[in-house]
Amino acid sequence: MTDFQITHKVGKARRGKLNTKNGIINTPAFMPVGTAATVKAVFTKDLYETNSEIILGNTYHLMLRPGSQQIKDFGGLHKFMNWNKPILTDSGGYQVYSLSNLRKLSEEGVEFSSHIDGAKVFVSPEKSIEIQTDLNSDIVMAFDECTPYPAEYDEAKQSMELSMRWASRCKTYFKDHNTNKLFGIVQGSTYEDLRHESASLLSDIGFDGYAVGGLAVGETQTQMFDVLDYTVSKLPIEKPHYLMGVGKPDDIIGSVARGIDMFDCVLPTRNGRNGQAFTKLGPINIRNAKYKSMDESIDPESNNPICRDYSAGYIHHLFNAKEMLGGMLLSLHNIYFYQELMSNIRTAIENDEFEKFRADFLSKYLD
Amino acid sequence: MTDFQITHKVGKARRGKLNTKNGIINTPAFMPVGTAATVKAVFTKDLYETNSEIILGNTYHLMLRPGSQQIKDFGGLHKFMNWNKPILTDSGGYQVYSLSNLRKLSEEGVEFSSHIDGAKVFVSPEKSIEIQTDLNSDIVMAFDECTPYPAEYDEAKQSMELSMRWASRCKTYFKDHNTNKLFGIVQGSTYEDLRHESASLLSDIGFDGYAVGGLAVGETQTQMFDVLDYTVSKLPIEKPHYLMGVGKPDDIIGSVARGIDMFDCVLPTRNGRNGQAFTKLGPINIRNAKYKSMDESIDPESNNPICRDYSAGYIHHLFNAKEMLGGMLLSLHNIYFYQELMSNIRTAIENDEFEKFRADFLSKYLD
Repeated sequence: MTDFQITHKVGKARRGKLNTKNGIINTPAFMPVGTAATVKAVFTKDLYETNSEIILGNTYHLMLRPGSQQIKDFGGLHKFMNWNKPILTDSGGYQVYSLSNLRKLSEEGVEFSSHIDGAKVFVSPEKSIEIQTDLNSDIVMAFDECTPYPAEYDEAKQSMELSMRWASRCKTYFKDHNTNKLFGIVQGSTYEDLRHESASLLSDIGFDGYAVGGLAVGETQTQMFDVLDYTVSKLPIEKPHYLMGVGKPDDIIGSVARGIDMFDCVLPTRNGRNGQAFTKLGPINIRNAKYKSMDESIDPESNNPICRDYSAGYIHHLFNAKEMLGGMLLSLHNIYFYQELMSNIRTAIENDEFEKFRADFLSKYLD
Repeated sequence: MTDFQITHKVGKARRGKLNTKNGIINTPAFMPVGTAATVKAVFTKDLYETNSEIILGNTYHLMLRPGSQQIKDFGGLHKFMNWNKPILTDSGGYQVYSLSNLRKLSEEGVEFSSHIDGAKVFVSPEKSIEIQTDLNSDIVMAFDECTPYPAEYDEAKQSMELSMRWASRCKTYFKDHNTNKLFGIVQGSTYEDLRHESASLLSDIGFDGYAVGGLAVGETQTQMFDVLDYTVSKLPIEKPHYLMGVGKPDDIIGSVARGIDMFDCVLPTRNGRNGQAFTKLGPINIRNAKYKSMDESIDPESNNPICRDYSAGYIHHLFNAKEMLGGMLLSLHNIYFYQELMSNIRTAIENDEFEKFRADFLSKYLD
């Protein structure tokens, strides 16, 4: 099947369309993060307006609360949260390591204690796919071990090999229980030969898309781009490439240039709730006193509804007065910013002007 | 001028239209409260959808933060907060007594310390009107002293008489500085002769509308209705009557029956943020465990967008997970509930069926 069509290429950058049962995703695509069945502080009806075509849900959070069985009973995650476009769910592996307590890792899977109520929970590759099947996400992620960063070579190798055995088990279980899409995840830390081996093993198993995992975990942008430089070229070229947990606007542009098609990140919403607004000149902190008297939009170059209707001075006031509307406005604004960035990237690739766009954007954007 | 047309009457209940420079208000009307230049957790674009035709802003909060001069510089409160329909501002008197510290009352006005930063502030009748003129609200409230409840007769009398002298000063200052509408406020606590005297004095001064103040301060519903029974009939019949700070759905219905045309209350939004949803069968607490598995709307008799799109189980989950979207959804739902109630009241009066509506509503609504 060719559910992914690449319509334009500029260097390694690709413009594509990914078909899922709940709609088409134009790539390169950014997925707002909807951890607990909500993109925090954003109504789904407004999320449609931002031109978001897919969101991400966190399996770890949803399995613990409200539980995947309840979401299944309510007709799946789309219906539960009132979102009728595609959803990708992660496998839960990352959060087991970053959020839970008392982990016990074995060949079979991971036992851990819930960060919410301490309950003992066991997740295996099969269990993760079963949960994601209950959630009925359009794109299911293979369950992997999240290799700590930095990792010694032997540690990274053993971890990657375990993840590859788990990837194979995910595929086996998936094909008997789920008709949506399954993506594999390349591991191998910052070691080129391990990344190559991982990519090769995943290609042999065969997935609907390939994610680069184990990045956005503390490494520099240069290190991340290095890994992409020697990893993405080893992924099946005709399948979508997804860089998990990334990132800032310049991370995204640099990764598109290296052949990445999909991204997810909490930055637009998390930073929005904390008073940071993304603008074409770089991020600003709306709490800064200089915005108090500014009767202009936070991003004079943008015409999204937040910039059109609200002044920087008003949003500054809302944060100053600890009003919920402040975080609501900046979360939405930041998603608009990210989706406009992705739209501009796609247009630039279509017009064979990606390198010009990249240079123009980065020359103005000061992080 | 006849900016207020009463189109239907059933007993003392009235159906009317109040013209302001920013639009017509259909009465009986409910005004959501937008304390600090935001109806908490609600976008103005969504507020329009609820059929809210006027909102209330709090002069006390706005004068302290961001300051009325800034709002004036930004083009007035409507533009500042992106709301283009009518706004009523209270006078600040109530909050000076309920929120500020170290008050010093004199014939001239009140000196107090800001609850935000302790700054000394002085407000007089003239100053309150000046501030409300800077805010450019469509309906300006006279500055009064908020008589404590309960009050001894002599205390209530002196307080009312001071408020009436202040009302006169408000009118004098207003007519030289403001072309919008000015409402007077009847005081007199629970004393019939004081309420009559207050109503008479205000009528002599002449206002665009008349509010009943000093209620919703701890008295029972029976006491409140008693005050309305002997007060509203003494107000100029051709002007709008506004009951400040009220109330619950049954308070509103009972007050409409006693000739009240306008209401404001924080209940829909405050209670919404705390997990209470209004329904036609009475308020419910969405945090209650029985809602966890309920894959139906919070109010099966309602078809507002929240009830149409979201299950009780989902909203329960959001509150359980402390997600902002929970408070956002219930605040909006509750405003829809209140505005649908007002719309049904207006229709019932038009159709000469108000008593039937009242009996039907109250027979189902269990508070």
